[in-house]
Amino acid sequence: MITKAQVKHIRSLDDKNYRRQFNEFVVEGEKMLSEVLRSGFEILMIYAVDEWVEKYKSELKNKPYQLIPYFELEKISQFKTPNQVLAVVKIPVAAIPSSLSGLTLILDDIRDPGNLGTIIRIADWFGIQNVICSIGSVDVYGSKVIQATMGSVFRVGVFYTDLKSYILSQSGTQVIGTSLMGKDIREFQYTEPAFLLIGNESKGLSQELEALCSDTVKIPQLGQAESLNAAVATGIICHALLC
Amino acid sequence: MITKAQVKHIRSLDDKNYRRQFNEFVVEGEKMLSEVLRSGFEILMIYAVDEWVEKYKSELKNKPYQLIPYFELEKISQFKTPNQVLAVVKIPVAAIPSSLSGLTLILDDIRDPGNLGTIIRIADWFGIQNVICSIGSVDVYGSKVIQATMGSVFRVGVFYTDLKSYILSQSGTQVIGTSLMGKDIREFQYTEPAFLLIGNESKGLSQELEALCSDTVKIPQLGQAESLNAAVATGIICHALLC
Repeated sequence: MITKAQVKHIRSLDDKNYRRQFNEFVVEGEKMLSEVLRSGFEILMIYAVDEWVEKYKSELKNKPYQLIPYFELEKISQFKTPNQVLAVVKIPVAAIPSSLSGLTLILDDIRDPGNLGTIIRIADWFGIQNVICSIGSVDVYGSKVIQATMGSVFRVGVFYTDLKSYILSQSGTQVIGTSLMGKDIREFQYTEPAFLLIGNESKGLSQELEALCSDTVKIPQLGQAESLNAAVATGIICHALLC
Repeated sequence: MITKAQVKHIRSLDDKNYRRQFNEFVVEGEKMLSEVLRSGFEILMIYAVDEWVEKYKSELKNKPYQLIPYFELEKISQFKTPNQVLAVVKIPVAAIPSSLSGLTLILDDIRDPGNLGTIIRIADWFGIQNVICSIGSVDVYGSKVIQATMGSVFRVGVFYTDLKSYILSQSGTQVIGTSLMGKDIREFQYTEPAFLLIGNESKGLSQELEALCSDTVKIPQLGQAESLNAAVATGIICHALLC
């Protein structure tokens, strides 16, 4: 039996400020649970129906879990049709690694949860280890972002900081922005370590950050759309630079 | 003054079946209205506040419009915070062009509105003229899809048909699918005319369609994510094939 206080606490984790106060977030569904169980993230409590516990018994060893009926899962789930399992997981407290190798993504006010999750998944696909977000970016531990990462959030480091002062502190790192006046990405070679800056969905890069770019690149445009979705542009540039 | 019947009709256009019964859909916001005014789409009625009409007077010429106060716009808008304008637009009735040149996108049950809209925007960016969707794909004239296209829906032809019989009817067209066992897209050359098949977000391509592919391609994977978002994968492949 799950208590009213537990229900209230878990539902309140929908809210960013509440989440950050307790440093906890919610992970839901079979695929995501498999990912978090394999990760180094600290699981505080798993709430699961019988069927799920039977299936994953061998992986549960020292993990705290509570068997609940389906109607109780419905009370705590953020899904319309809940899956079999939900976990409350600790938000890791970590500083940006002091020395970053390879390519790091820098996100300037990405606001759409789906875009942030998709970009983290792109990072994971291309072996990019860190994503650094402006303070104004959407919170990575919201359920829509977590789901859109498809588990990549457990493998890619995601940090929030003041981007201008952070970039200024990293002298010797190539800073690559995107611009319609930039170099064609097919002919551009980057030098490690490098930052790839991705701008806000509607405003693009802020002038402040644009001024910090050592290079700008562009994706060839053959048709009439004025721009590409931020995550799609990130994917194309990462592929062009890294592959 | 807008009538109760008008409010009811416009709100009902949220529903796919109602939309298809009347062959009408809703377009909202300044940017989207600019796009539809420049397109060949038939505008049935524009509902706008004073400020918008003043700004766009010269472009309104023969277009039907009705001046409404903001509180009436709120009643018909699908946005939480409506913009200044909403239009009811005729869904164009058109058959798939009988001879397709270049690359055509074929979507096998894309279900997420954001993904469909983003893929249409990618098509428009790369000069792809047609997108052909399975009957089970999300409807392009829903508001989330329309918004995600950022206006590209007015320039790219979008059609729904039974994909298997359609592809079988187009002999001589190269059919390219994606597969983890496919050829590296960096080394793949396509031959016009060609179809690029994009699978469902969770299930990928159906076996039925996979069997029709003359070639399969893959995006190099350097990290650990199992897959990329469908729209991101489409963007990377289109860039690799067309640029």
